[in-house]
Amino acid sequence: MPYRAPLADFRFILDHVAGFDAVAATELFAEATPETVEAILGEAGKLCENVLAPLQREGDLKPATLENGVVRTTPGFAEAYRQIAEGGWVAISADPEHGGMGLPLTVATAVNDMMSAACLSLQLNPLMTQGQIEALEHHASEELKALYLPKLVSGEWCGTMNLTEPQAGSDVGALRSKAEPNGNGTYAITGQKVFISWGDNDFSENVCHLVLARLPDGAPGTKGISLFLVPKFIPDENGNPGRRNSLGVVSLEHKMGLHGSPTAVMQYDGATGWMVGAPHGGMKAMFTMMNNARLGVGVQGIGVAEGAYQHALAYALDRKQGNTPVEGGSGTIVDHADVRRMLATMKAETFAARAIALNLAVALDMARATGEADWAARAALLTPIAKAYGTDTGINVASLGMQVHGGMGFIEETGAAQYLRDVRVTAIYEGTNGIQAMDLVGRKMMDNGEAACRQIEEIQTGAEAARASLPALAEDVWNAAEAMREGTEALVAQGLNDRFAGAVPFLRAFALVLGAHYHLRAAVAEGTQGGPRTRLAAFFIKRLLPEHAALLAHAREGAADLYALSPEDLSA
Amino acid sequence: MPYRAPLADFRFILDHVAGFDAVAATELFAEATPETVEAILGEAGKLCENVLAPLQREGDLKPATLENGVVRTTPGFAEAYRQIAEGGWVAISADPEHGGMGLPLTVATAVNDMMSAACLSLQLNPLMTQGQIEALEHHASEELKALYLPKLVSGEWCGTMNLTEPQAGSDVGALRSKAEPNGNGTYAITGQKVFISWGDNDFSENVCHLVLARLPDGAPGTKGISLFLVPKFIPDENGNPGRRNSLGVVSLEHKMGLHGSPTAVMQYDGATGWMVGAPHGGMKAMFTMMNNARLGVGVQGIGVAEGAYQHALAYALDRKQGNTPVEGGSGTIVDHADVRRMLATMKAETFAARAIALNLAVALDMARATGEADWAARAALLTPIAKAYGTDTGINVASLGMQVHGGMGFIEETGAAQYLRDVRVTAIYEGTNGIQAMDLVGRKMMDNGEAACRQIEEIQTGAEAARASLPALAEDVWNAAEAMREGTEALVAQGLNDRFAGAVPFLRAFALVLGAHYHLRAAVAEGTQGGPRTRLAAFFIKRLLPEHAALLAHAREGAADLYALSPEDLSA
Repeated sequence: MPYRAPLADFRFILDHVAGFDAVAATELFAEATPETVEAILGEAGKLCENVLAPLQREGDLKPATLENGVVRTTPGFAEAYRQIAEGGWVAISADPEHGGMGLPLTVATAVNDMMSAACLSLQLNPLMTQGQIEALEHHASEELKALYLPKLVSGEWCGTMNLTEPQAGSDVGALRSKAEPNGNGTYAITGQKVFISWGDNDFSENVCHLVLARLPDGAPGTKGISLFLVPKFIPDENGNPGRRNSLGVVSLEHKMGLHGSPTAVMQYDGATGWMVGAPHGGMKAMFTMMNNARLGVGVQGIGVAEGAYQHALAYALDRKQGNTPVEGGSGTIVDHADVRRMLATMKAETFAARAIALNLAVALDMARATGEADWAARAALLTPIAKAYGTDTGINVASLGMQVHGGMGFIEETGAAQYLRDVRVTAIYEGTNGIQAMDLVGRKMMDNGEAACRQIEEIQTGAEAARASLPALAEDVWNAAEAMREGTEALVAQGLNDRFAGAVPFLRAFALVLGAHYHLRAAVAEGTQGGPRTRLAAFFIKRLLPEHAALLAHAREGAADLYALSPEDLSA
Repeated sequence: MPYRAPLADFRFILDHVAGFDAVAATELFAEATPETVEAILGEAGKLCENVLAPLQREGDLKPATLENGVVRTTPGFAEAYRQIAEGGWVAISADPEHGGMGLPLTVATAVNDMMSAACLSLQLNPLMTQGQIEALEHHASEELKALYLPKLVSGEWCGTMNLTEPQAGSDVGALRSKAEPNGNGTYAITGQKVFISWGDNDFSENVCHLVLARLPDGAPGTKGISLFLVPKFIPDENGNPGRRNSLGVVSLEHKMGLHGSPTAVMQYDGATGWMVGAPHGGMKAMFTMMNNARLGVGVQGIGVAEGAYQHALAYALDRKQGNTPVEGGSGTIVDHADVRRMLATMKAETFAARAIALNLAVALDMARATGEADWAARAALLTPIAKAYGTDTGINVASLGMQVHGGMGFIEETGAAQYLRDVRVTAIYEGTNGIQAMDLVGRKMMDNGEAACRQIEEIQTGAEAARASLPALAEDVWNAAEAMREGTEALVAQGLNDRFAGAVPFLRAFALVLGAHYHLRAAVAEGTQGGPRTRLAAFFIKRLLPEHAALLAHAREGAADLYALSPEDLSA
């Protein structure tokens, strides 16, 4: 299962589709020159190809286990993690003040893409730490920052997120974990948390848990929740791991995939914690972390899509088939129109999802570097789209990859099935894709759809500029954007629950139109002679984009017909 | 994971959507009165609920194993198989002359649906035997029939299909297995076959393999292939299992799912076989078997969809969520519009796929009972649609079922993930869904689309009749059928490889339009007051049917743009 880092694709998207030059032109990111970025991505690519990719199947076959309360990780993971940490790959976008490279998130996003493709279950570990660093940078006290950030950034310590409880999943406000003041500035944290990715490991000196819990005077629901940093080992006066905290792993889950990543049930029994952010301000702090984590999880889907695509393409180019339907064919199954349709779909969707994610990363970098509200609004709009479309693309592409393999796709030794089993959870965790869609049509459209309409306008402006060189494709994209505008206007005129009823198809329609927009940009950049990117753009725009109309029709239906289907109807 | 046989749904579809009364009115199937059918389905339902469903997870956790060349099946499977055999459920549509019940295939289809939902991996065993019975009934000599059919029909012996070889999957004509005449009317079969479902077991007296192989004078390709019956034990003079034949299981595959079903690599070393059908007529005989098997596999998808739906619905009705978005809600996640959208999608797609499968079964029964070519042509047209849409629906519904479960969906104990892992292969085996689509636009349209247009006309006639009571839904269905007609005309005007390039989206469009047609029939049958079926029909027609337009646009594109994307482009 060899993996080749798609460096040319990143380069092209950064240069021609995501407008990375604007990021490099800011003072904050002046060091992110093309040469530096190329060197960084090249190094990360080597690590992924040579160190991580060989562990992908190991993680599946030799899952993490729990032995007498101790998590034992997949053989090879510890050494690979050491290389990730020592290479500085845990947090390349972290503040240099704490040892980070201070590189744009856009660069980190490309690195995460490659690491996800190479070994998703191990990559999830630093992704969690990245989220924690982000939350601490924004919300922790200076003392906590000084103590924890250098260790997290260097990868000596790992970070986790503890939100979910058995009765509180998407409904975070239902959580019951308690935090009682110890009278010395610390808190005693008690409760059970479930689905904690990388809840423990046997290769980092410490594991730091960010835990949502309720203070004694915390109101019910999300408004009464606070955030606490609860380390496995309490740092001593020198900042080294000291006394064992009263927390532990109760059990690990037996999952469909992602076996190399231990998913823990965590028990906190009056564990010592430190508050991060304001009392009852836990959700706000958590959202900082979750927004970047949502981009990160979307990128997991994209990375897996890339891995599954390369894997299926290699098979299609190798697998002999007697009768070739085309003159001068290679005699392998890639000669078959339906196989080529599948491969083209995989490649075109992966490009679209990657372009969306990198445009989001650029918006986040620009918002940080310039402080301009427009960039922040754009990033907020794109976040749920990047998460849901990225992960849906991972699932769809992995499933197509199995299909390209025919019968071999169902056989585990082939590796095609693992991509699907691993990536399936990405549509669920970090906010299900349904939650993402509700975020898009709810919170992200509280501005009456203004940010959405600005985005649509950008698409139409791009299409107008493309009319001269690519009239047919430009016309399709312009029209799809216009349908999207009408769909958005119709949506914001609806009540909230009517919007929710069409949220998932609406989000997908938006993603298709954005994807078409970025494909068109790529085609324009290729120039009037055309080339592979223009051909791929035509494939996406002519064959996949048309679905947006059906999705928008679906989204307009409102909620009434759904509720007319009563639980009794559904049970009949 | 309780399962409830959807008897009311079968009854309703048979009575109001699939026109089963025509079957019962034939002389051949005069015994299939409503009372008999109801009794049969009720009994089968009990077996599925009480005996098979409890084994579903057992099969996953305790896969079949190979020990010193002997296959050991999942604990409990042997006893459950005994009950299937003794109840006469292996082959209820087999000829009474050989011990079958002689019931319509339509009834067998409903039984297969329930058995697939309850325990897919065990159900695959009698499904294989059913295909073998069908092939022998049509093509075997009287001696072979008299010897084998009673044992197969009673379930004392099991049957398998041996087509695939390592280098010959979808490209069956590439097979290398040889058959040399022994001079006594038997043949010596030599070769290796792979992906042989239920290649052996430890609960039937004998296992009979239908093996494709090439006679010494067989031409290359599919035209030189013959079919042989090769039993594990050669029947003695009394027809009892005698001498062990020189064949065996080399290994079992490690698969993504369907663990309870042993998938074998089979080795034949001069094994004694008997020819079935004419020399070099193997493909013709195999197609008899494969056509019914394709319906059977489509129904596997539908059964799994039903199981996954029931499972997700039970979870949604039980899982508490703090804030209900609707007044008077139940306080569980079913109150949420997006959850209801998922459940409605699952139920509406399952109904559509089931209605297509049962209409196909009725067409096969009518073709057999009346000998009319129109029924046969209709069945031929519907076969690839039922297979591909049934299995795609199984996959889509199982994946939605996981999503309804949220984080729990990824945890194996829940059972939701197993449905997806098990059903994924149904889109691959028995002819991949790509092969089905190519069959639809190729072989099944060699009549210039006449059979397709007759089917479309039936849809429009139905829509016209529905205009009085359900004008809005009828209008949508009529228009979609009209688009389908235009799409079909455009398709048959294309060259074969252009058709192939759009085959998969074309098939799906056809399935959606057929599904809408059957939903509309169900709504009309419910009468002017409306009811749950009318509400579900509205959901399908308003929200899911619109995708047909995008799919037809995709299908019209032809092959040129796909081949313009060269292997170099795809590798870039």
